Amino acid sequence: MAAGDTTITVIGNLTDDPELRFTPSGAAVAKFRVASTPRFMDRQSNEWKDGEPLFLSCTVWRQAAENVAESLQRGARVIVSGRLKSRTYETREGEKRTVIELEVDEIGPSLRYATAKVQKMSRSSGGGGGFGGGGGGGGGGGGNAGGGFNDDPWASATPAGGGGGGRSSSSFDDEPPF
Amino acid sequence: MAAGDTTITVIGNLTDDPELRFTPSGAAVAKFRVASTPRFMDRQSNEWKDGEPLFLSCTVWRQAAENVAESLQRGARVIVSGRLKSRTYETREGEKRTVIELEVDEIGPSLRYATAKVQKMSRSSGGGGGFGGGGGGGGGGGGNAGGGFNDDPWASATPAGGGGGGRSSSSFDDEPPF
Amino acid sequence: MAAGDTTITVIGNLTDDPELRFTPSGAAVAKFRVASTPRFMDRQSNEWKDGEPLFLSCTVWRQAAENVAESLQRGARVIVSGRLKSRTYETREGEKRTVIELEVDEIGPSLRYATAKVQKMSRSSGGGGGFGGGGGGGGGGGGNAGGGFNDDPWASATPAGGGGGGRSSSSFDDEPPF
Amino acid sequence: MAAGDTTITVIGNLTDDPELRFTPSGAAVAKFRVASTPRFMDRQSNEWKDGEPLFLSCTVWRQAAENVAESLQRGARVIVSGRLKSRTYETREGEKRTVIELEVDEIGPSLRYATAKVQKMSRSSGGGGGFGGGGGGGGGGGGNAGGGFNDDPWASATPAGGGGGGRSSSSFDDEPPF
Repeated sequence: MAAGDTTITVIGNLTDDPELRFTPSGAAVAKFRVASTPRFMDRQSNEWKDGEPLFLSCTVWRQAAENVAESLQRGARVIVSGRLKSRTYETREGEKRTVIELEVDEIGPSLRYATAKVQKMSRSSGGGGGFGGGGGGGGGGGGNAGGGFNDDPWASATPAGGGGGGRSSSSFDDEPPF
Repeated sequence: MAAGDTTITVIGNLTDDPELRFTPSGAAVAKFRVASTPRFMDRQSNEWKDGEPLFLSCTVWRQAAENVAESLQRGARVIVSGRLKSRTYETREGEKRTVIELEVDEIGPSLRYATAKVQKMSRSSGGGGGFGGGGGGGGGGGGNAGGGFNDDPWASATPAGGGGGGRSSSSFDDEPPF
Repeated sequence: MAAGDTTITVIGNLTDDPELRFTPSGAAVAKFRVASTPRFMDRQSNEWKDGEPLFLSCTVWRQAAENVAESLQRGARVIVSGRLKSRTYETREGEKRTVIELEVDEIGPSLRYATAKVQKMSRSSGGGGGFGGGGGGGGGGGGNAGGGFNDDPWASATPAGGGGGGRSSSSFDDEPPF
Repeated sequence: MAAGDTTITVIGNLTDDPELRFTPSGAAVAKFRVASTPRFMDRQSNEWKDGEPLFLSCTVWRQAAENVAESLQRGARVIVSGRLKSRTYETREGEKRTVIELEVDEIGPSLRYATAKVQKMSRSSGGGGGFGGGGGGGGGGGGNAGGGFNDDPWASATPAGGGGGGRSSSSFDDEPPF
């Protein structure tokens, strides 16, 4: 469990279909990006206009990852609640870069412009027994602060800062970290 | 439009089915209550235990109200985002009481333990053209800061503070304001 | 430590000077109320007007309580971050009432319209060594989810729900629970 | 005024003294970076340990900028409330990069480990008459959604997306956008 995380709620639309993968140990993880577009009152026209969208890359783990992949498509309006995380990686040229991403705790389709038929998962299929719930069958892990990213199926860029050693075996070290 | 509102995101479960009503002018409004149960680490047993739930009464307007009533039932786990509001009312005995409630901006079913089939509403059926969207066909109204509660179909208790005059014609002035 | 709390940030003004007390075990606790006034754009006058203020009762513990009492007075504009809590109590007439309050994690004077001379406490004088910091010299205790309210120096109304037994020895059972 | 912004509260420490500048039109703006360090319970040692810090670049405008520069130094623990913004810029090599930053609405020194002597500014010295307050004497400007960045005294990297025109006259186009 963690304390002192920077929590945030984002309301916006998926820029693409969520991408679902599994760690070697079998834990599901989904990634997606949310575009949140503020609006502002234009004083001259006295009309609402769109401001610059905020794009935020999001990661969700375990049963929720599978549920997201099954339930949400590109364009879907969502409410996402989670914790902001800095992630530093190294480009092929050896340059360190830091991005800010969202580790999702809870996500759902917005009912502002849509209805939803909700289907509860049986508890035996994973998801854990409660809030912050433990991992599913496959091995759980991951996702938490301090948890390793070793298990990250997207881990193609060498993580920086750890000082440590060998480059990833991936041949796409410079791949966007997303 | 409003500024300086106290915004909040609540994750919890509906204590009952949402209750849908319509104002005289035809605007939909739904009320429901969310129970959000924190968990704490019990040092003696080294286990997570449930803390005291937080109960929060919520109001949602217009198209979203209809979508909520159609999509969510008692027990559903939801993410709710909105603005905290004080509401003062007077009991039959003439005592003023103040409750804190949530004016909902956005709500959706959580995908932590459930999947959802999302059905987008056609724009013509209301809901407005964008964020903060205007009212639907019926006349919109309500819901915003500064907007009157005159239109409130639940208005059975005399609102206090306005100083003003006549009691509600309702015969249930002491009814819980919910 | 707790999970699943409903966190919130409130920006507003103290309605009174903070009130500082100590539990029998020596832990400091301060209470105060914040009034947060939203503003809305009045379409007719095309001007910003004040909306209904939100009043929120707040509790802060330990070293921070002493710092609040020393630093903030009635009217001070503050930023308050904490967790919303329901609290149920019983009036002298045996009626149960529930109020929503804020358990403060962090508070500071706003620099929007003010400057501040900040004086860091020496670590030895309490406050703990880090985030979520432990109690000060006196015995710490209290404040956390699951922590008892037995220690509450304001405990004049009989807590409801615990089932348990004897009324408080206080002669002011009906005192506003604040 | 804006709607649909992604608001956030960050609690952390200043990584450096705030840097105060003025736009050509005379509006004050301060920049600083906050490091927020979560903590997590290490299951093996049963102790709290520091997680990876989140670093967030922050901008604050007008009177509050001057107050921040006068009141806060490197290392100060602060509560910051504002709106997350994506900002895209172009490096000298013509590469576009996007960073996420915080446009500050309200900031104050935390009273968790410190006391503060608060000095209210006289209204005549700027700061506007209320929440969301208008610009000060100098001409206000900037900072709001939809507001141009033309006035940005840090504008050394060519903003991308606007398509438009001439490169900045700065000789440090590749300077970190901070």
